[in-house]
Amino acid sequence: MKYPKPLQDLVDSFSKLPGIGKKTAERLALFTVNELSQEERELFHTRLASVNDELTLCPVCGVITDVTPCSICSDSSRDQQLLMVVEDTKDVFVVEQANTFHGVYHVLQGTIAPLKRRGPEDINLRSLIERLKDPSIKEVILALNSTVDGETTSLYIQRLLKDVDIEVSQLAQGLPAGGDLQYADEITLRRALEGRRVMKRD
Amino acid sequence: MKYPKPLQDLVDSFSKLPGIGKKTAERLALFTVNELSQEERELFHTRLASVNDELTLCPVCGVITDVTPCSICSDSSRDQQLLMVVEDTKDVFVVEQANTFHGVYHVLQGTIAPLKRRGPEDINLRSLIERLKDPSIKEVILALNSTVDGETTSLYIQRLLKDVDIEVSQLAQGLPAGGDLQYADEITLRRALEGRRVMKRD
Repeated sequence: MKYPKPLQDLVDSFSKLPGIGKKTAERLALFTVNELSQEERELFHTRLASVNDELTLCPVCGVITDVTPCSICSDSSRDQQLLMVVEDTKDVFVVEQANTFHGVYHVLQGTIAPLKRRGPEDINLRSLIERLKDPSIKEVILALNSTVDGETTSLYIQRLLKDVDIEVSQLAQGLPAGGDLQYADEITLRRALEGRRVMKRD
Repeated sequence: MKYPKPLQDLVDSFSKLPGIGKKTAERLALFTVNELSQEERELFHTRLASVNDELTLCPVCGVITDVTPCSICSDSSRDQQLLMVVEDTKDVFVVEQANTFHGVYHVLQGTIAPLKRRGPEDINLRSLIERLKDPSIKEVILALNSTVDGETTSLYIQRLLKDVDIEVSQLAQGLPAGGDLQYADEITLRRALEGRRVMKRD
């Protein structure tokens, strides 16, 4: 005996999500059917249905938004001279939550990933080049993930901008806040050493 | 800056599910918006919408089903003399997957749980008593979870059936298959000892 078809279908949909295996998908689907109130379930499916109509990518920076241009691009109080390049929408919200950056963003929607056959033309790079023709932009901060693909992409962009009169920088690498030296891996330690800051000159 | 409202709404819906915290809900919602194909997302929300119309509880045993009575209750090849009492629908499918039990089920939809103010009248007990008036039922197997609430419920049912002419049994407790003695907790070990089977008599 298998689950009734509508239930099995729902299990299949849940198991399409990242990090959700078969067992968890079963638990989520059964919970949805069994424990969620009628009202909550209706909210859930109408939200899923509407999310596609109500959300779009910002035509300027590429972040997921419900207004165009997005609330960051249209915020005149933000520093339009400072452009942070990130991999995806999630990163924008992570940086925003830290409340420490007041420039604007450019979302690549991925990275160059040779092993996944994703080249420069498959990510949102062309529009970055277009944006950088605006002479008001003074600095591009590359805030890609510290992975092989992220660093490949950083390097690619750095070369691309070699002859353009814009400063290009990268987020500092080193020990995380609260990080214990004995748990740091070799690469982190090496980069923390390379990037050391002078506290007092003799 | 917060997520756009439709996205935040979807995050809220995901975080209602069990084991899904704020971070995971954000990841699932972003994945749904960003990575799921239009088609998969539509399947997902129509399945969520239809699950409530297409599924119901079996009027006989209480399992979630899309036909009434469910495919187990209406299967004449199953042993109707043997009734297994379980906590919820999930348990029925777990036992079915083991393919070792060929009787029928009764789903309690929960347990007696004094701390959660759930008494005998809050679970599917009345219909169990009704069912047991059928003289064809010879044995009731209590297959509730080995938790305080599960065992309280087992005990309650056992007392309830004290004067009824039906055999009442409980699943064996002991070491799990592949279980290592040194990792067994004291209670499991004690029960495995109490329930030991004679292999050879002198």
